[in-house]
Amino acid sequence: MAARIEFWVEYASTYSYLSVTRIGRLAAEQGVEIDWQPFWLFPVRDQQGLSAPFPEGSARANYMWLDLERRARKLGLPYRRPEVYPFKSMPVARIGTVAAREGWCQAFTEAAFRLHWTQGVLMGTPENLAQALAAAGQDAARVEALASSPEIKEALTRQTPRAIERGIFGAPSFVVDGELFWGDDRLEDALQAARRAG
Amino acid sequence: MAARIEFWVEYASTYSYLSVTRIGRLAAEQGVEIDWQPFWLFPVRDQQGLSAPFPEGSARANYMWLDLERRARKLGLPYRRPEVYPFKSMPVARIGTVAAREGWCQAFTEAAFRLHWTQGVLMGTPENLAQALAAAGQDAARVEALASSPEIKEALTRQTPRAIERGIFGAPSFVVDGELFWGDDRLEDALQAARRAG
Repeated sequence: MAARIEFWVEYASTYSYLSVTRIGRLAAEQGVEIDWQPFWLFPVRDQQGLSAPFPEGSARANYMWLDLERRARKLGLPYRRPEVYPFKSMPVARIGTVAAREGWCQAFTEAAFRLHWTQGVLMGTPENLAQALAAAGQDAARVEALASSPEIKEALTRQTPRAIERGIFGAPSFVVDGELFWGDDRLEDALQAARRAG
Repeated sequence: MAARIEFWVEYASTYSYLSVTRIGRLAAEQGVEIDWQPFWLFPVRDQQGLSAPFPEGSARANYMWLDLERRARKLGLPYRRPEVYPFKSMPVARIGTVAAREGWCQAFTEAAFRLHWTQGVLMGTPENLAQALAAAGQDAARVEALASSPEIKEALTRQTPRAIERGIFGAPSFVVDGELFWGDDRLEDALQAARRAG
């Protein structure tokens, strides 16, 4: 069995920027295959009776921004705090669902996050999607039509019970052989588990 | 200025077991002085409008137990899941307050956590306190009388606004030169910051 890691990506998640940016290189170096699993976190938490993680402006939220920037700096990643947070990520998750199905999820997702987190081209805006789709070599009109189809809507909806089955409650999440790892700071552990299981 | 780290300890905190067990050796090796700051987290979060972190039995809670045990194993620390969680930590925090004032907080706190997390001698029970105080070379009757005094009660109460001032919302927390680090997995970063500031 090839070493393999499920990467559950929520496009509105802050720390996911770090993992989206890092996982491609790390997994390739370690011979681990990434199984991209775009999902929408809100209904997952809602069905689990979990509220929003914390109120904007609270000490907990303030710390997230401090820690996120500090981590980006430590990891050597460019970082520019986006002007908008939170935002509704369901539409971009539908495009991610098309991308995962067709095999270009990494290129699209890396570009969409990079635009949002380093250039102020906000996630899911027409400019963000156009540039990220172009980076993935895709025709925007074709993909956006497909992303609105009942089939893709249903595929994204089906991610909710699949996430819950795995015990997922946040993002980024990694699943290796049924074992859950949550948070960018568990990415290395998850990859190590994938190598052991592979 | 000597390198110095404030360690904000909540006796009911799960991940604090990892930090309480590790910080003494790491700080000593790195020439960092630990400023023990026992506190009671509940009123801090309450005054910040933050609810309990997550409901017992939720996916989030289940993951905490999985991750905590995995981390303990990775760090080479003994681990035995205590039978009781959560519990009220205010009484033991008062003893910690006496300990911090008198300079034996590390010995007491290490012993209390070790008993709770490796031997099933639950935090704050008479047996736990008696053994932890003995490990710190203290007379239980003297300390327990002092811990119930208005002076110590007030000292613990004053930790709440001090914690809020620092942006603290959880435990373990570390503060270096006014900068907050939260979580056992930020202990190394906090110590590094202390060495730089020292």
